[in-house]
Amino acid sequence: MELNYGIIGTGAIGGFYGGFLAKSGKEVNFLFNSDFQHVKENGLKIDSSTGNFHLKQVNAYNKSEDMPKCDVVFVCLKTTTNHILKEMLPSVMHKNSVIIMIQNGLGIEKKLAKEFPDTSIAGGLAFVASSKIDKGHIAHYDYGSLTLGFYQKANDEVLNQVSIDLNNAGIECNCVEDLNLARWKKLLWNIPFNGVCVVLNAKTKELVSNEESRKLVSDLMYEVVEAANHCGAPLKTDAIDEMIDSTFKMKPYAPSMKLDFDFKRPMEIEAIYSNPVQEAKEAGYDMKVTSTIEKQLYFIQETYK
Amino acid sequence: MELNYGIIGTGAIGGFYGGFLAKSGKEVNFLFNSDFQHVKENGLKIDSSTGNFHLKQVNAYNKSEDMPKCDVVFVCLKTTTNHILKEMLPSVMHKNSVIIMIQNGLGIEKKLAKEFPDTSIAGGLAFVASSKIDKGHIAHYDYGSLTLGFYQKANDEVLNQVSIDLNNAGIECNCVEDLNLARWKKLLWNIPFNGVCVVLNAKTKELVSNEESRKLVSDLMYEVVEAANHCGAPLKTDAIDEMIDSTFKMKPYAPSMKLDFDFKRPMEIEAIYSNPVQEAKEAGYDMKVTSTIEKQLYFIQETYK
Repeated sequence: MELNYGIIGTGAIGGFYGGFLAKSGKEVNFLFNSDFQHVKENGLKIDSSTGNFHLKQVNAYNKSEDMPKCDVVFVCLKTTTNHILKEMLPSVMHKNSVIIMIQNGLGIEKKLAKEFPDTSIAGGLAFVASSKIDKGHIAHYDYGSLTLGFYQKANDEVLNQVSIDLNNAGIECNCVEDLNLARWKKLLWNIPFNGVCVVLNAKTKELVSNEESRKLVSDLMYEVVEAANHCGAPLKTDAIDEMIDSTFKMKPYAPSMKLDFDFKRPMEIEAIYSNPVQEAKEAGYDMKVTSTIEKQLYFIQETYK
Repeated sequence: MELNYGIIGTGAIGGFYGGFLAKSGKEVNFLFNSDFQHVKENGLKIDSSTGNFHLKQVNAYNKSEDMPKCDVVFVCLKTTTNHILKEMLPSVMHKNSVIIMIQNGLGIEKKLAKEFPDTSIAGGLAFVASSKIDKGHIAHYDYGSLTLGFYQKANDEVLNQVSIDLNNAGIECNCVEDLNLARWKKLLWNIPFNGVCVVLNAKTKELVSNEESRKLVSDLMYEVVEAANHCGAPLKTDAIDEMIDSTFKMKPYAPSMKLDFDFKRPMEIEAIYSNPVQEAKEAGYDMKVTSTIEKQLYFIQETYK
């Protein structure tokens, strides 16, 4: 089955996955914002730890209305701009399109499903260290895998083909049955590190090097596990110590929320903090520590402008 | 009964209460650190909202060994230097001296009592906005009352006389039966405002003006009430809304811990956070939100040097 792809938001994530698919010969239609003119003239550059490449000509668009209908749409925007999807997506969708939300946090597909109740919607969890370092220029530092799972109106045939296409393009991709569990698993790292790095103005390494902040990271992880289990995601505590140790061994790293804060972009507080806190509360569990970080982040976002 | 007084630590608190007592004609012996020579030559100045005064000659000392024995000793150091008391106090004490710990937090008298098991030990809660603005120069902005209560070997006659002496000197002072309750009452304000002002780099007004940080302040207050009740202090939640409202009406205020942080002095994390968290834990209650702030403060103290 030959699929064509649309990338909504060609930044560190969309540029990376879309770039690899395009390089492997797939039809990929990229939506750009401010980089459009530059990419139209100069193409898209990917500096990857697996080898650099330059796509001299890419299907670049600056309006979704100009894009062709796509079998698979990767939504790679920040969750803070998801409110534009309701208007933007219909022009790139046909009846059987699969929308894949490659974003952090929780409650993302649920919100989209309210707006598109008859559409195949999946989620994607990107485990990749990459960033946009210049116009049409993505740097890939480490990792790269993608985990996919359906939220509504599963179309396994298409999702399996996406996985095959990505693997053929050199990206490790796997499909899971339980998207909810996959999202909570990712929150296990994102909830402690994203927000606390902002509140304490630190990188990951500092948080796990100091005894007290390491305890705070661990408290948050145990709380995420407890919340996940209340929300039907059978997450275990086994991974916690290893996850902290491996973060200690990583290069000092500024998580995406810390970068957003440093560059004065809106932070994904709702998706990464408020939605999990709210879902847990509805399931009868009070994420007290997470909710403390959540409130601090909102204060910081509204005050440090 | 005529009492003589010793002031261990003549700063914003010790200078204020000791200054008023000296002005009223009581014998007050002040221990100074770096201000000693200046006060010896120029005396002690108090700019008070109730009227300014200048004590041209005061009993100033720079070593406790040189001080006379005192009937009543006000300990007005920061809790972070309490480790020096074991060596320092004996020279100013006679058999019936009363030591009054005018400090913030919890567990202060307990620690001193281990070192001085046979001494009359009381606690004092200062409700005063004052600061040392220059050598031997204290500014008093607002409030001023002092609450006293015994921790061990109560000597009510002396404590009542202290209260009378202070009231005669123009200071509102009252004695309470339940020092533990008085300390938890004060923590109801200190736990939310001292630490969160440091973590979020804000003054009180900002914290209660922003919806999310105001919720955090409220969460912390409810947690303090719950902890207090587990620790035998029948604190009520009634005062919470009014306390937040009155803090909103106050001038923007930097609590003592925020000043300590800004001037790179050690913060009183142990007395204001760790001791309450620990006592509550021993009583079976986990102060999750307070403990989050505690860990953040230790990280900040160790990292932002």
